Amino acid sequence: MSLNTFGHLFRVTTWGESHGPAIGCTVDGCPPGVPLSEADIQPWLDRRKPGQNKFTTQRKEPDEVRILSGVFEGKTTGTPIQLLIENTDQRSKDYGEIAQSFRPGHADITYHQKYGIRDYRGGGRSSARETASRVAAGGVARQALAALVPGLKITGYMVQMGVKRIDRSRFDAEEIELNPFWVPDAVAAREWEEYLDALRLAHNSVGAVIEVVAEGVPAGLGAPLYGKLDSDLASAMMSINAVKAVEIGEGMAAAALTGVENADEIRMGPNGPEFLSNHAGGILGGISTGQPVVCRFAVKPTSSILTPRQTVTASGQDTDLITKGRHDPCVGIRAVPVGEAMMACVLLDHLLLDRGQTGGVRGRIG
Amino acid sequence: MSLNTFGHLFRVTTWGESHGPAIGCTVDGCPPGVPLSEADIQPWLDRRKPGQNKFTTQRKEPDEVRILSGVFEGKTTGTPIQLLIENTDQRSKDYGEIAQSFRPGHADITYHQKYGIRDYRGGGRSSARETASRVAAGGVARQALAALVPGLKITGYMVQMGVKRIDRSRFDAEEIELNPFWVPDAVAAREWEEYLDALRLAHNSVGAVIEVVAEGVPAGLGAPLYGKLDSDLASAMMSINAVKAVEIGEGMAAAALTGVENADEIRMGPNGPEFLSNHAGGILGGISTGQPVVCRFAVKPTSSILTPRQTVTASGQDTDLITKGRHDPCVGIRAVPVGEAMMACVLLDHLLLDRGQTGGVRGRIG
Amino acid sequence: MSLNTFGHLFRVTTWGESHGPAIGCTVDGCPPGVPLSEADIQPWLDRRKPGQNKFTTQRKEPDEVRILSGVFEGKTTGTPIQLLIENTDQRSKDYGEIAQSFRPGHADITYHQKYGIRDYRGGGRSSARETASRVAAGGVARQALAALVPGLKITGYMVQMGVKRIDRSRFDAEEIELNPFWVPDAVAAREWEEYLDALRLAHNSVGAVIEVVAEGVPAGLGAPLYGKLDSDLASAMMSINAVKAVEIGEGMAAAALTGVENADEIRMGPNGPEFLSNHAGGILGGISTGQPVVCRFAVKPTSSILTPRQTVTASGQDTDLITKGRHDPCVGIRAVPVGEAMMACVLLDHLLLDRGQTGGVRGRIG
Amino acid sequence: MSLNTFGHLFRVTTWGESHGPAIGCTVDGCPPGVPLSEADIQPWLDRRKPGQNKFTTQRKEPDEVRILSGVFEGKTTGTPIQLLIENTDQRSKDYGEIAQSFRPGHADITYHQKYGIRDYRGGGRSSARETASRVAAGGVARQALAALVPGLKITGYMVQMGVKRIDRSRFDAEEIELNPFWVPDAVAAREWEEYLDALRLAHNSVGAVIEVVAEGVPAGLGAPLYGKLDSDLASAMMSINAVKAVEIGEGMAAAALTGVENADEIRMGPNGPEFLSNHAGGILGGISTGQPVVCRFAVKPTSSILTPRQTVTASGQDTDLITKGRHDPCVGIRAVPVGEAMMACVLLDHLLLDRGQTGGVRGRIG
Repeated sequence: MSLNTFGHLFRVTTWGESHGPAIGCTVDGCPPGVPLSEADIQPWLDRRKPGQNKFTTQRKEPDEVRILSGVFEGKTTGTPIQLLIENTDQRSKDYGEIAQSFRPGHADITYHQKYGIRDYRGGGRSSARETASRVAAGGVARQALAALVPGLKITGYMVQMGVKRIDRSRFDAEEIELNPFWVPDAVAAREWEEYLDALRLAHNSVGAVIEVVAEGVPAGLGAPLYGKLDSDLASAMMSINAVKAVEIGEGMAAAALTGVENADEIRMGPNGPEFLSNHAGGILGGISTGQPVVCRFAVKPTSSILTPRQTVTASGQDTDLITKGRHDPCVGIRAVPVGEAMMACVLLDHLLLDRGQTGGVRGRIG
Repeated sequence: MSLNTFGHLFRVTTWGESHGPAIGCTVDGCPPGVPLSEADIQPWLDRRKPGQNKFTTQRKEPDEVRILSGVFEGKTTGTPIQLLIENTDQRSKDYGEIAQSFRPGHADITYHQKYGIRDYRGGGRSSARETASRVAAGGVARQALAALVPGLKITGYMVQMGVKRIDRSRFDAEEIELNPFWVPDAVAAREWEEYLDALRLAHNSVGAVIEVVAEGVPAGLGAPLYGKLDSDLASAMMSINAVKAVEIGEGMAAAALTGVENADEIRMGPNGPEFLSNHAGGILGGISTGQPVVCRFAVKPTSSILTPRQTVTASGQDTDLITKGRHDPCVGIRAVPVGEAMMACVLLDHLLLDRGQTGGVRGRIG
Repeated sequence: MSLNTFGHLFRVTTWGESHGPAIGCTVDGCPPGVPLSEADIQPWLDRRKPGQNKFTTQRKEPDEVRILSGVFEGKTTGTPIQLLIENTDQRSKDYGEIAQSFRPGHADITYHQKYGIRDYRGGGRSSARETASRVAAGGVARQALAALVPGLKITGYMVQMGVKRIDRSRFDAEEIELNPFWVPDAVAAREWEEYLDALRLAHNSVGAVIEVVAEGVPAGLGAPLYGKLDSDLASAMMSINAVKAVEIGEGMAAAALTGVENADEIRMGPNGPEFLSNHAGGILGGISTGQPVVCRFAVKPTSSILTPRQTVTASGQDTDLITKGRHDPCVGIRAVPVGEAMMACVLLDHLLLDRGQTGGVRGRIG
Repeated sequence: MSLNTFGHLFRVTTWGESHGPAIGCTVDGCPPGVPLSEADIQPWLDRRKPGQNKFTTQRKEPDEVRILSGVFEGKTTGTPIQLLIENTDQRSKDYGEIAQSFRPGHADITYHQKYGIRDYRGGGRSSARETASRVAAGGVARQALAALVPGLKITGYMVQMGVKRIDRSRFDAEEIELNPFWVPDAVAAREWEEYLDALRLAHNSVGAVIEVVAEGVPAGLGAPLYGKLDSDLASAMMSINAVKAVEIGEGMAAAALTGVENADEIRMGPNGPEFLSNHAGGILGGISTGQPVVCRFAVKPTSSILTPRQTVTASGQDTDLITKGRHDPCVGIRAVPVGEAMMACVLLDHLLLDRGQTGGVRGRIG
């Protein structure tokens, strides 16, 4: 299938470079009759928007989305929805050094090796800017989910920045929107501010872990064995720039558990079976259980830093490179709305797939 | 795309249930002229084969693979290769309890909810038995890789079982084939034997972490942004039964690193650029760097255990379930050859994809 | 996507060669709970079976299908259905000449050029034998359609053999099953018998046109613009061996019509809109109208004939080739059940696709 | 897969409605390093552009294409190429009647039934305007083909308009660009002008047959059995608005041929095997032979005519409809460049697919 498309029935194809005239995506397969306007998508883009505080790139982009097709009289028509976001702040600068040298830890060198040519302006296609298109597509997916599965709720937040982890005993969902890190822990928020500030002033950057939880996901989404809900979540999250790992439920920690510990026991409740725990993260055998779907992913530290690193030039010379410009000290911060968007797209896609094969009918228990 | 197929150009479609007459897969898109016979595939299946020691299920399956199509006079013809493995040891037993109850931590309940019907005999489609088909397909991929990329080498091994981790300072590749755990650490091998034995006798099971490394992978495989090499590896590994997390390079640990630490610095060597470290796990921007591709995944503990767990029946009754039968105390052990097979399939697929788009030409450095 | 797979959600992957141990296909994405057994599929295979009269190859194949997976207690489970048909009559013979020479009008030469190797035994993968797998898959599709769309009926028949056309004024559906040509015209049946006999005795062969009609197809199946119902029918029919053209409704004749003539006028009937004609063949804008879907395809004459034809050998020598062996004088005859099967697969696939995107809800008229 | 995408490795996703702000497409999988600018694409769009003579719609559209991504310093980068064409002439008019009534022979009614909503302005997504995106994509494919297969040449022309056919004995390629019909027959060109003028003044329209020939196509493109070159051509051409039939080589006429007649005999020539005829249209067994690929398709007459036709309204009332506005009396005319574009896209896609699987190596003859 296409290499810049994801999804089976609800498909998103993104395009565009950091410093081209615009970026965007085509959303295909959206159910018809879903209420949709720019106003439904813009708020999600605003959350990801750069330049909102000193912890994100100072590039100033309004990230205003335009719907160019697929919507008529305020509703989706079932035909492709083209979402376009103009690049307004491509600061005119000399790219000389970046053009010739490869940033260590960056895609510069692999693009050069694979394609023999790369748009080095602001990282071109490999810029985190591409994630704006994902967030826009996620906005469409959220509208469709709201129409099809009232009550489904997707929440993303940071649980780790560098060596700092949240204290889950202090978990406070209210707090997420109140700090620049989307961290659900007021104490951590304060500590992280100092921590990241110090790293930033030291011309350094740091990684992060984001957790995305979807509540109200119906049982039965996903399928064995290669169209599993968790396989598609893993692929979707890993496709986000700088992500190096994806976990479902217990994730890596599942390795240290015994079968007795890991078994999510079940008891009948007033409305059917109830799980007494959720080590599985809401997915068994690639299919949703009806419990919250819990996904985490790790974002590596920004590779563009002001500290000189050893590298080589395209002409094969050794050199030391300092990456000037406007870069996030922790790109993981802005990955929170991106992870939420990918979750929304994957869930809608599997909702449509399930409806296609099974008609959405569920096997009875009790 | 199909839900039981993986791959873009090198595509594998698997079929079959644990206790049906047979399982197998169709391998489509294999290059023509590749030497292939059952003898090239069987050794890989033998590594995964059950009943080899007390740490794997006592089910006795020869796992003899038959090539039914796509090979002529010892070479692949470029047409679909059908690989069939008969199920010989479907012990006739009463499935009554499993048929009516859902094993906690198992796909029983999600299959029931999604499809309203499930082949409960031995876990049916959700049985780890399906992974034999993957190993067979991986054997085909290895033959094609050997023909296209001489020197490419794939090695899988366990790095963690339950709470026990290997000591990387004792890493010994020779040791991998010498113990039942494929662990590259002779000391760990002995300790793990006692550890797992105790768990087994306690009617318990445990999880594991497998690491798969591919050396000799050419630079330039993969692509932005949804056909990334790491996205496809994540999807492929997560699609293996019981896997709950996938890491590339530093994986989750990348979150704790700073940009200064994480940058894999580069220097020109006699044969082109050389990386001074490999935090990236051989992949930058979704494209291979030419360094070893390093992938890890966590396998949860076997959910079928002899310790009673609370669950419900299809008719909605609370019950306590003990899973009798022949189950691996650590299903992660047999996941080692499976992870290797998935790595082989993904690499070959991306090798063909890259050749299709770029012709395999690489951008020069120096 | 895979090159031996067709379908979007209801996917069929076929494998196997004419003289290998077996042929078959994997049917993926079938809805769960559909009653299915070998007995539901076998009758369709029997219709296509060779050796039934002097007008089809004298090869004797029972074409007995075995279901190896995806069915439990007489119902589909929603997992892949493997259908296997053994090759029992691979007459041991000397393939020397065919092995070295390329039959004019046959795929021998293109397989050789593309792959550099070909299984020449009985035509290998390019043999019409592969169509047995399609018919088996079609049998599964028919079962699912029967469950989802009661009253949907698919009928295939020949409307032309060589220069002989049916007289539509004599159209008699009853007649289709009463003659070896599945021709709905008793007079034509008699004439064609003499006509084909003469060609056969003259060591010649001839082409044919098959028409497949699906009645009771709900409105709304298909989609703009590349997943059109007619595009997929065109692709499916053209993928049948020896097919050189596909028509929907008026087909090529539409070119000679005026807009006034071609407009299928509409009037409200007791149960909604009624079309006064069906030039469109039941499809407008790639989407079904609710009228009968009418598809025709042309099959070229069998290229394996006893009359010597000029050709070359793999070693580059000019030669004259006579193709001995057991070949259909009009392969179009057995293409009738194949065309029906492809129609069934495409309709089910689009039924599932439509249900996935729209939930099967239809826009009201009146 | 997506319903608004076509192609396997070279993939085109189109979007946009007739009277929205713009239309366009995303071209994914294009090889890197291909020279590309708007100037390379515009000439093909200009050929399809409306309003060039009285035989095409009087809508005035400059159809100026903008490349928004995937090109850097005049060359493709291997990343997605976004092509955007603004709609400048959406004449403000009252759509009342079209909004409520369904044009007989038009997609109005099926869109309404499937989606329950449709953008009726100018036909919305079902407008022939969408074909401009295909022509733009074809322009990209042509550039890549020129780089990969020097000498490959694609030529489209009309061979029939209504009841008028060309006289192949007068075939003159030079003539194609000299008349408004792209007909390779000067005499026909004059006759057709009168013929179409009369139909136009009679408030009528008419169908056509377009032939597209590709010369210099290498042998070995395509594959059994569902990714056949002819299957993909059939799908691609049938996906063009108003197309009702597709033929390869002899097409429907193959049915009337005998095996002796249809066999394209072969003789060794100075540069390998030479075919003495081309009934096959350059494709055998789904794979190109190296001969010219010959494809024809029939376009039905424009359904929007000034002659009143019986139809119904969305509210279920019978009515007679006259379609005012600016419509082509023979939409087949502008289908010529569209057919050429689809041929270019399909050939490039299969060139990349073949290179991926086989590396482009060919089996030797002689």
